[in-house]
Amino acid sequence: MWQLYQFPLCPFSRKVRLLMSEKGIGYELQRENPWDGRDEFFHLNPAGRTPVLADHGKGVVLIDSRAICEYFEETVDKNPMINGSAASRAEIRRLVALFDENFFGDVTAPLLHERMKKRLVYRASPDSRMLREAMKLAHEHLDYIDYLIDNRPWLAGAQMSLADLAAAAQISVVDYLGGIDWSGHEQSKGWYALFKSRPSFRPLLAERMDVIQPPSHYADPNA
Amino acid sequence: MWQLYQFPLCPFSRKVRLLMSEKGIGYELQRENPWDGRDEFFHLNPAGRTPVLADHGKGVVLIDSRAICEYFEETVDKNPMINGSAASRAEIRRLVALFDENFFGDVTAPLLHERMKKRLVYRASPDSRMLREAMKLAHEHLDYIDYLIDNRPWLAGAQMSLADLAAAAQISVVDYLGGIDWSGHEQSKGWYALFKSRPSFRPLLAERMDVIQPPSHYADPNA
Ligand SMILES: N[C@@H](CCC(=O)N[C@@H](CS)C(=O)NCC(=O)O)C(=O)O
Ligand SMILES: N[C@@H](CCC(=O)N[C@@H](CS)C(=O)NCC(=O)O)C(=O)O
Repeated sequence: MWQLYQFPLCPFSRKVRLLMSEKGIGYELQRENPWDGRDEFFHLNPAGRTPVLADHGKGVVLIDSRAICEYFEETVDKNPMINGSAASRAEIRRLVALFDENFFGDVTAPLLHERMKKRLVYRASPDSRMLREAMKLAHEHLDYIDYLIDNRPWLAGAQMSLADLAAAAQISVVDYLGGIDWSGHEQSKGWYALFKSRPSFRPLLAERMDVIQPPSHYADPNA
Repeated sequence: MWQLYQFPLCPFSRKVRLLMSEKGIGYELQRENPWDGRDEFFHLNPAGRTPVLADHGKGVVLIDSRAICEYFEETVDKNPMINGSAASRAEIRRLVALFDENFFGDVTAPLLHERMKKRLVYRASPDSRMLREAMKLAHEHLDYIDYLIDNRPWLAGAQMSLADLAAAAQISVVDYLGGIDWSGHEQSKGWYALFKSRPSFRPLLAERMDVIQPPSHYADPNA
């Protein structure tokens, strides 16, 4: 059985969970806070980051969410998520990188720092200037999603792909932390509402991160 | 003909150039400084980052160095660089992520900031505390390369792979900026010396970044 080392608000772990669920692959959760710096975890992943996916019985350890997703894409046929021509696949991977790196760096990482780590680890208050800046950048990213959805049914083209899962994973974490304001983003909001009602998404929305509570609309598929 | 938008010290562009050269794919260089923020460049890549690889005649634009490398892996059989079983391919991609993200973030990005951007863009002096910290982390990364090379002929296993190209690309930029001290890293040094004499590497080592000069050993395959 696969063991997924993660914490509930790790967006990269969420992307892996969405992919595994869409493909019907079972796994168990192992709670891991990378900021605890456990020796055993560094032994598993020298980079000290979540997600790590391990099948200890088979001696397989997979590290890095993109490497994990490519692995399942290659080994499990059901519901392909990096599909189509080489150019279509490149477009999917471009968008995955955009959400994993730019959206994460601009929006998710600052929100996790200000609203999760400062509360749980540093016992400090969030810096409102940092929050404002991250939420301003969130609007720019939602504008880009609006633009994509104006031109295509799904972010990377005609079919749902890993690009949609990567984007929804990041957005769901930011929404949990109160950083998403949908006003003026009808296209993005409609696209995201589709996700909220998917069976793969329900378990994520039901989880809570320790003492941190999401806003009331967070898990509601009609809000 | 492929046009590669890049600047000489962009490590991700170097990785793409190594892969294209190993696979025998021709391209022309287009100098692009992402920090100039040219409108035309944002039009090509909304993320505003190098590398971008475009074939304007065919209307193909590829973005993100990993997406570009996967594209050529899928379309050009010669010299496969993400090869072997699904588990081997996952190990290659884990290491690519480690060098693209951790090595880059810990070492290459601070050195590019302190020794290139401050000189060319901000006209400021480097911060010696930041340089010391980056060079300390470089040692830790070289320790890990030593460990890999003690156990395997190439970084990800029995054959040269994209992991080696990703690592060599980052290291070559840091070496150009005077940030690599090989003492105590014989295994890494020997592995890197192999690269320096490869035909794919020679053109990179011959290039210069504006007024910034590399140390004398930089392009010497025997040093
Ligand atoms: N490229 C990695 C990124 C993983 C990552 O940044 N994980 C964060 C948690 S959301 C982490 O473990 N950070 C701790 C650290 O960087 O030390 C992936 O896609 O898996
Ligand atoms: N994941 C991207 C990273 C590209 C990247 O960070 N490029 C740097 C130059 S080395 C850049 O353009 N930075 C400008 C910016 O982030 O605004 C890739 O692999 O292509």
